[in-house]
Amino acid sequence: MAPFLSKRDLQFQLFEVLDTASLPKRPRFAEHSREVYDDILNLAYNVAEKYFAGHTREADLNEPQVIDGKVKLVPQVAGAMKAFRDAGFFSAHHDEEWGGLQLPWVMMQAVQAHFQAANIGSSGYPFLTIGNANLQRVFASPQQQEKYMRPLLEGRWFGTMALSEPQAGSGLADITTTATPRPDGTYSISGSKMWISAGEHELSENIVHLVLARIKGGPAGVKGISLFLVPRYRINPDGSVGESNHVVLAGLNHKMGYRGTTNTLLNFGEGGETIGEIVGEAGRGLAQMFHMMNEARIGVGMGAVMLGYAGYLASLEYARERRQGRLPSNKDPLSPPVPIIEHADVKRLLLRQKSIVEGGLALGLYASSLVDELQTGPEAARADTALLLDLLTPIVKSWPSKYSQEALSDAIQVMGGAGYTRDYPVEMYYRDNRLNPIHEGTEGIQGNDLLGRKVTAGQGRALAVLLERIQADLKASEGLSGLDEIRGGVQDAVEQSTAALRTILGQAEQLGPDLFLANANSALEMVGHTVMGWTWLRQATAAARGLAGARREDADFYRGKLQAAKFFAVYELPKVQTWAELLASADKTTTEMQGDWF
Amino acid sequence: MAPFLSKRDLQFQLFEVLDTASLPKRPRFAEHSREVYDDILNLAYNVAEKYFAGHTREADLNEPQVIDGKVKLVPQVAGAMKAFRDAGFFSAHHDEEWGGLQLPWVMMQAVQAHFQAANIGSSGYPFLTIGNANLQRVFASPQQQEKYMRPLLEGRWFGTMALSEPQAGSGLADITTTATPRPDGTYSISGSKMWISAGEHELSENIVHLVLARIKGGPAGVKGISLFLVPRYRINPDGSVGESNHVVLAGLNHKMGYRGTTNTLLNFGEGGETIGEIVGEAGRGLAQMFHMMNEARIGVGMGAVMLGYAGYLASLEYARERRQGRLPSNKDPLSPPVPIIEHADVKRLLLRQKSIVEGGLALGLYASSLVDELQTGPEAARADTALLLDLLTPIVKSWPSKYSQEALSDAIQVMGGAGYTRDYPVEMYYRDNRLNPIHEGTEGIQGNDLLGRKVTAGQGRALAVLLERIQADLKASEGLSGLDEIRGGVQDAVEQSTAALRTILGQAEQLGPDLFLANANSALEMVGHTVMGWTWLRQATAAARGLAGARREDADFYRGKLQAAKFFAVYELPKVQTWAELLASADKTTTEMQGDWF
Repeated sequence: MAPFLSKRDLQFQLFEVLDTASLPKRPRFAEHSREVYDDILNLAYNVAEKYFAGHTREADLNEPQVIDGKVKLVPQVAGAMKAFRDAGFFSAHHDEEWGGLQLPWVMMQAVQAHFQAANIGSSGYPFLTIGNANLQRVFASPQQQEKYMRPLLEGRWFGTMALSEPQAGSGLADITTTATPRPDGTYSISGSKMWISAGEHELSENIVHLVLARIKGGPAGVKGISLFLVPRYRINPDGSVGESNHVVLAGLNHKMGYRGTTNTLLNFGEGGETIGEIVGEAGRGLAQMFHMMNEARIGVGMGAVMLGYAGYLASLEYARERRQGRLPSNKDPLSPPVPIIEHADVKRLLLRQKSIVEGGLALGLYASSLVDELQTGPEAARADTALLLDLLTPIVKSWPSKYSQEALSDAIQVMGGAGYTRDYPVEMYYRDNRLNPIHEGTEGIQGNDLLGRKVTAGQGRALAVLLERIQADLKASEGLSGLDEIRGGVQDAVEQSTAALRTILGQAEQLGPDLFLANANSALEMVGHTVMGWTWLRQATAAARGLAGARREDADFYRGKLQAAKFFAVYELPKVQTWAELLASADKTTTEMQGDWF
Repeated sequence: MAPFLSKRDLQFQLFEVLDTASLPKRPRFAEHSREVYDDILNLAYNVAEKYFAGHTREADLNEPQVIDGKVKLVPQVAGAMKAFRDAGFFSAHHDEEWGGLQLPWVMMQAVQAHFQAANIGSSGYPFLTIGNANLQRVFASPQQQEKYMRPLLEGRWFGTMALSEPQAGSGLADITTTATPRPDGTYSISGSKMWISAGEHELSENIVHLVLARIKGGPAGVKGISLFLVPRYRINPDGSVGESNHVVLAGLNHKMGYRGTTNTLLNFGEGGETIGEIVGEAGRGLAQMFHMMNEARIGVGMGAVMLGYAGYLASLEYARERRQGRLPSNKDPLSPPVPIIEHADVKRLLLRQKSIVEGGLALGLYASSLVDELQTGPEAARADTALLLDLLTPIVKSWPSKYSQEALSDAIQVMGGAGYTRDYPVEMYYRDNRLNPIHEGTEGIQGNDLLGRKVTAGQGRALAVLLERIQADLKASEGLSGLDEIRGGVQDAVEQSTAALRTILGQAEQLGPDLFLANANSALEMVGHTVMGWTWLRQATAAARGLAGARREDADFYRGKLQAAKFFAVYELPKVQTWAELLASADKTTTEMQGDWF
C-alpha cells in the first residue's frame, strides 16, 4: 500500500520553506529543538499508521448506526482515540500548566496532517475536541475551563460545535434555538441542531457541545446570538459525570463520504431540561464561534490537502507499477508495455495533483505559522499578521477543498477502472473530500467573505500586507535559476488581480452590495490562484537553494519541486486573467437571470 | 421528487434546434410523423418513470452480489427489462423486417435519454444489447444475425462487449485471449476479460458476448485481433438455448457508482470449451469493434449528459423551495429568508449546470442526427458527414463526461449538506457519472484520437467541414437580438482554436509523435469548448426565433436559453485562449518531467 504522507515533503515544508527550526529561540518554545520536532513527527506518523490508517475503509463501509439508542462505530475507533490520547496530542499545543508541550501551531497542524491523511473520519473526533478546547481557552472563564476544558485536554471528554439548524443551514442569523435564564445563572436550552459532527457516540465519558442560541427576549439577527457550553451529561460538583442533560439524538445523516465521522441531528431540551452555561458576554456568540471557525477553516483546508495528497501518492505508486501501452513514437507491438507514468498525459495528471496538494500543504502550513507569529512573533508585526491571516483564511479553506477534489479526480483517472473501485482508496478520498467545499462555510460564503470583508480590511492594509510579502519573496528569488516561469506567472497574476480588485472596489458604491458581490466567486478563484502561485514561488526558491550541492535522491526531489512550480505557472496561473476580466467587468449575467427562466 | 428530464427542452432540441420533424419526408421514415414521435417520447417517459426511476437508489444501495454462483440484482430490474421489451425499444430503430419501427437514430437516442436519466444502472443492460445487435447488423453474416441478433432484438437475450483484459486495460493491442480454430470453422476461445458490464446476470435467457481475441499463430499487435460471437450458453440447432459454453464468472467489480450495472471479470474456456464464431474476416476485430465503440461513445456522452441533467433538475427544485439567508443589500434580520435561487452565486451554479447539460444534450442529439444523415441523408453530403461525425465523436464522449461531473458538483454545492446525503439523488449521480471519463476510452485516449487522427482526417477536410458548419450557423444567426456575446465568443474561440491547431500541426513533423501529442488534452479541451459554444449558438438562434411571438411561459423558456448561451460565452469560452496558447507553444513541462522527480 502507498504511504499516506510524504515525510520528505513535510520536512521540506517545515524546515526549508518555513523556518520552523528557529522557533525554539522564542521563550515559549525554549524547551524545543529540531530533534524534538522530528521525534514528534515520527510519533505522529507511527500512531497514524498503526492506529488510524488500518480501519479507514472499514469505517467507510460500516457507517455509524444507532443500535439500542446508541451510536455504534467500528470498534477500532476507540483504540485510535486511546492511542491519540496516550501520545499526548489532545493538549500538545497548550501550556505546560494544562499538561501541554507548548507545541507551535504549525507543528500541531503538521501532527494533525498525519491523521487527516491516514483516516479523515476518525480524526474528526479529536480535532473537534481540540477546536472546542481552543475556544474555551480564549473565551471561557477559569472555572469553566477547569470544569469543561481540562477533561477535553485529557482526552477523556470530547467536544463539538453546534451551530446549524435544520431550517437555517448556513444562515446562522436565523437560528431559533433558545436559552432561557435560570435562577442560578445557567440557561435552559431548547431547540434542534443539524449537521453536528461527532454529536453523539460512546467514545468519551462526556460530550461538551458549544451551542449557539438566543437568549429569550433578546434582539433579532446576529446580535441576539450567544454561545453556551452544553454537556451531554450534567457534571457533578466534583467534576464527575452525572445524569442525562437531555440532549437527544434525533437522527444520523447518511453521507456520500466522510462516513467515519458520525453526523447528527440533536434535539436540546427533549424529555427534560437541557442546562447550559453562557460563554463570556451575551450577544457575542457569533464572534466567539468565529474564533473557532477560523481555526476550523484552516483545519478543513488542511484536511482537503491531506486527502488529495494521499490520493496523489496512491495514484503515483500505481502509475509506477502498472504497465500499459507504448509511447506514440513506438510502433513495435512486440516491445513491452511501458509503466504508465511514462505517458505524457499521465505525467500531466500527476503533475497537476502534485502542484495542487504540495501547494496546498505549503499554504496550510504557512497560514498555521502565522498563528504562531500572532502569538509569539515580534509584537510590532502582529497587527499586519492578523490582517494577513484573516485575508488568507477563506483561501486556505476553499482552495484546497475545491482543487483537491480535482486532484482526486485526476488520481482516479490515472488509475482508470481500478481507481473507480473499492480495491483502491482513491474513490473513497474523492467521496470524503467532496464535503470540504460545503462545511465550515460554503464556497459562496468564502467568496463573499473575501471580497466583501477581507480584501478591504484595515482600510486596504490587509491586501497591502499580502502584496508586500509576495514582493519580498519575488525579490528573494532573484538570481536563482529554473524559476523564470513561476516568477513571471506570479508577477502577471499579481498585476491582473490587483488591477481587477482596484476596478471592482472603485465601483462598489455605485454597484451596490448585491451587484458588487455578484462575482465574488471569481474574486475567490483569482486571489486563490495568485496566492497559490506565490506558495509555489516560495517552494521553488527553497528548492533551487536546496538543489545546489544536493545528493542524487534529494536533487530529484528538488527538480520535481521546480517542475511542479513550472507546471503551476504554465497550466494554472493563466486562468487568473479570465477571472480578473470577469470580476473587473462587474458582469451581470447571473444577477439578470430570473428564477422563472430556468 | 424532481422530474428526471425536461420534456420541454427535449422538444426544443429535437424540433426547434434540429429539424427532426422533417425526417418523415425520407422514404425510410415515411410511416412516421411528428405525432408518432411525440407518442414515442411520451411512451419512453412513462416507461422510464414507472419501471426505471423507482429503483435507482435501491439498486445503488444493493449492488450486485454473487449468491449460489448467480449474480443477484434488485428484483425490479427484471420488471424494467420486461417493460422496455414490451415497449418495443430493443428493435425500434431496426428495419420492419426485423420487427423494428425504423426509428431515426436521433429519436432512438432521445428515447434512450429517458432511461439514462431515470436509471443509468438498469439502462446499461438494454443499451449494451442494442449496441451489440447494431454491430451484428453491419458485420455478422445473415445466418449469424438470425442466430445471435434476432433474440437480442426481441429482448430475450442480452449482449455485451468484451474487450479489456486484466493485464491490458485500455491497451487493446496487448490482449492475449486466444481463438483456436476448430474443424467445423468455429473457434475455441480461451482467456480472461475484465470490466465486462452486464457480463453475467439472470435477466435474459442467454448472453451474447462480442469478444476480441487473437487467432493462434496470427500476427502481433492490432492486426492479429479478430472479433467473435461467444454465447454464455451454446445454441441448439433450432435456436433454443443449450448447455453451458464455459464462460465463467471470476469476480464482480465493486464500484463507487453505476452500481446497478453489474461489472465482471469473465474467464473463457474454464472447466470446458468455450466455442465462438468469428465475425467477418480475421484480423478486422478492432475496426469492427470501433464501429460499436463510436456508437458506444455517443451513448456514454449522452449518459453523462442525462446524469448531469437529472442532477440539475434536482438542485433547481431544491433551490426554488429552500429558503435561506438574504441578499447582501438587505440588512433587516426580521425579513423572511429568500429562496436560495435568488442568491447570485446559486444562480451562477445553476446557470453553469444549465449551460453544461443543455449544451451537452444539444451536442449529443446533433451527433445522433449525423448518424441519420449518414444513413438516409443526401448521398452527396455523406462523405463530409462521416468526417464530421468522426471528428466530433471524441468530443461527444469526453466533454459531457468531464463537465457533467462539474455540473453535478455544482448541484451538490447548491444543496449544501443535503446534497451530500443519500436523502437526495445528486450524490449518487455524482458517483455514477465519475465512470464516464474512464470507460469506452479514457480522456487521454480521446485527446490522442482527436489531435492525432481526427483533426487531420480527410487531408484536413474533417476540420474544414466543422468550420463550414459553424460559419453557416454564425451567418444564420445574423440580425437576431440577444446573441452578441455568444456570437462573439464563438468567433473568438474558432479563431483561437484554428490558429493553435495550424501552429501545432505545422510543427508535427519536427516535434515527432511524442511531443506533438504531449498536449493533446489541451486540444481536446480547446476544440471541445469551441464546439460547445457552437451548440449554444445554435440553441440561442432557435430561442431568439421562438421568442418572437411566444406566450409567457414559453417566453421565459427562451429567455433562459439566451441567458445560458450568454453565460457560456462569458464564463466558459474565454478559457479557450489558455488551452490554445498551451497547445500552440508545444509546451514540454510534462514530457520533461522525470518519473524519479515525483
